[in-house]
Amino acid sequence: MKVVFTFEPPAEMRKEIRSSFPYVEFHFFQNVDLAETEMESSEVIVTYGEDLTDEHIERAVQLKWIMVTSAGIERMPLKAIKEKNILVTNARGIHKTPMAEFTIGLLLDHARNFQLQWKNQQQRIWDKTIPQAELNNQSIVIVGAGAIGQEIARLAKAFRMNVFGINSSGTIKENFDEMYSLENISTPLEKADYVVSILPSTEQTVQFYQMNHFEKMKNTAVFINLGRGDVVKEEILIEALNNKEIAHAYLDVFQTEPLPKNHPLWGMENVTITPHISSTTKNYLPRALDIFQKNLHTYINNKGQFINVIDSERGY
Amino acid sequence: MKVVFTFEPPAEMRKEIRSSFPYVEFHFFQNVDLAETEMESSEVIVTYGEDLTDEHIERAVQLKWIMVTSAGIERMPLKAIKEKNILVTNARGIHKTPMAEFTIGLLLDHARNFQLQWKNQQQRIWDKTIPQAELNNQSIVIVGAGAIGQEIARLAKAFRMNVFGINSSGTIKENFDEMYSLENISTPLEKADYVVSILPSTEQTVQFYQMNHFEKMKNTAVFINLGRGDVVKEEILIEALNNKEIAHAYLDVFQTEPLPKNHPLWGMENVTITPHISSTTKNYLPRALDIFQKNLHTYINNKGQFINVIDSERGY
Repeated sequence: MKVVFTFEPPAEMRKEIRSSFPYVEFHFFQNVDLAETEMESSEVIVTYGEDLTDEHIERAVQLKWIMVTSAGIERMPLKAIKEKNILVTNARGIHKTPMAEFTIGLLLDHARNFQLQWKNQQQRIWDKTIPQAELNNQSIVIVGAGAIGQEIARLAKAFRMNVFGINSSGTIKENFDEMYSLENISTPLEKADYVVSILPSTEQTVQFYQMNHFEKMKNTAVFINLGRGDVVKEEILIEALNNKEIAHAYLDVFQTEPLPKNHPLWGMENVTITPHISSTTKNYLPRALDIFQKNLHTYINNKGQFINVIDSERGY
Repeated sequence: MKVVFTFEPPAEMRKEIRSSFPYVEFHFFQNVDLAETEMESSEVIVTYGEDLTDEHIERAVQLKWIMVTSAGIERMPLKAIKEKNILVTNARGIHKTPMAEFTIGLLLDHARNFQLQWKNQQQRIWDKTIPQAELNNQSIVIVGAGAIGQEIARLAKAFRMNVFGINSSGTIKENFDEMYSLENISTPLEKADYVVSILPSTEQTVQFYQMNHFEKMKNTAVFINLGRGDVVKEEILIEALNNKEIAHAYLDVFQTEPLPKNHPLWGMENVTITPHISSTTKNYLPRALDIFQKNLHTYINNKGQFINVIDSERGY
C-alpha cells in the first residue's frame, strides 16, 4: 500500500516512519504539486490540510484516509471527501502545550516590559525605573475554553491569576474561576488585564469582536489572538489601538497570511506580531506523526480506534 | 517618636503611612545625605540597605530599629549596629513571586526565540522557521533552594519541567525532583537546559562558578544569574560564552552595578542584560512597606513578634 506526504518531514523522521512500517511504500514530497502523480494511486495522504482541492480528491481513486497534521481543517474539500466516504483524522490535542506556554510567554513579555529592556541593552542603557508588573492577581479572559484554553487556564492559575473563561455553554471547567457564554462576554471583559482569543473560524465567530468589546476593556488591557485572524476585522482592531481603548495587541494570526509587507499592523508601537507560530515548536511534528503512526497501525491491522476522527459533515 | 526614610515612596504611600500612624513623626528624604540631620534624633530608620555607614550609626544616638526594605544586607554596617544593639529587620519573603515570574519569562523568551521574533517584526519579516522549543520536559537546575528557589520550582513543575535543586543540605523540598548539595552540583549541571542562580553573596559563594561548571553544561544550556554578580568572575563567564560552552546567559546582576558602559557583556549576541530588576515590580514597595507597618505596630505597642529580624552577627 502507498502513503503520500504533501510535505517533507526531516530525514530522521522519514527514516523512523519507514523503519516502523517496512511493508508500506512511503512517498514524501515538498509540496502538493509534486505529489499529484503519486496521489492518484495512494490509499493514504498526509497533509497539513491547506493544499488539497476537489480535483485532488476526485483523481485519487484509491484514497481511503487523509491524515491532517494540523487542527484547522477549514480549507479542506470536505464535501468531496464526504461524498467519497474518505476517513479524515487530524492532530488536535497536540497544540495545547506549546500554545499555553506561548501565551504565558507573551503575558510575561508584556508584564515585565521585556521589549523595552532588550532595546535598552542595545543602547547600553541601565534603567531600573522601567515599569514592571506581575501576573499574580491579574485577570485573564480566555475566549475559547476547549483543550487549549484549559491548558492556558491551568498555567494561569499556577501564576495565581484570576481566570475567566468563555465557552458555548457557560459551564464551568477546572482551573477557571468563572465561565461565561459568548453572549455574556462583556462582564469578564471589563475586568480583564489580558484577553486571549483562541476562537476557531466558524460562522458564529467570524468578525465576532466589535469596537464595543474593546471599549469595554480597560485601557491597560492586552488583547492576544492565537486562534484565527478573521474573528476580528483588522480595521476595528487598529482603530481600538489608535484610540488607546487597549494598551497592546499580540497577534499571531491575521486575515491574510503571510501578513502583507505594507500592512499597517507591522509598524504599530503597541502591536507585537508573530508569524502564526504559537503551536509550532520542534515538538510539533514528532507529536503529529506519532498520531499518524498510531492511526496507521489501526488502518493496517483494521483493528482498534482511530485517533481524532473528523466528522466531514460537521467539519470538526 | 521620629521615623526617617532615606528614600521617598510615592505620595499616596507616604499619605497612607502617615494616616495609619497619626502620632508618629515621619520624615521622607530622597537620599541618605539629605536625611542625615534628622537621623540624629530618630528612633527608626527605613532604608534600602545600601546607604548607611558606621558614622551614621554612631551619630544616630536615638536609633533603636532599622527597617531594610530589601533582602540584601551585605552593605550594612552590621558591626556598629550590633555594638549598639540596634534591631534590624528586612523585607525577605517578598521577592519570590516577582523573581519566579521573571525567571519563567526569561525561560520562555529563550525557548520561543522572542528576541529574534521582535527583530523580524521591525523588518516586516514573516519567518515561520525560527526554531522554537518548549519548557515541557526540559530540565532546570535552581542553585539556591530557599523561598525564591522553591517558588521558581513550583512554577517550573506547572510547566512539567524536570526540576533539580541545589541547597546546603541536599535535603529534598517540595516541587523539586532531585536535590544536591553545592559540592555535588556537577551531576545536575550536565543535564540542565537552564541553570538559574539565586545565590546570595557569601564567603562560600563568591566566585563559586568556575570554567569547569560551564564545561559540564550542555552547549545548548542557558545560564541565568538573578542572585549576586560576584558569584562568577565575569571574565570566566565571557570566555565560556565565547567558547560556546553554553548557548546564552541572562544576567540581572553584575560585579559592578550599574554595568559600566564600556563593559563587553553589553554587546554580546548571546547575552541578555537587565538592570537588577528581577524583583522590582510595582508590587515591591507596597509589600515592603506592609512589613514595615506591621513591625511599626509591634514597635509602638511593644507587643508581638517582629517580622524578619536579622541576626547582625550572622548577617541574615
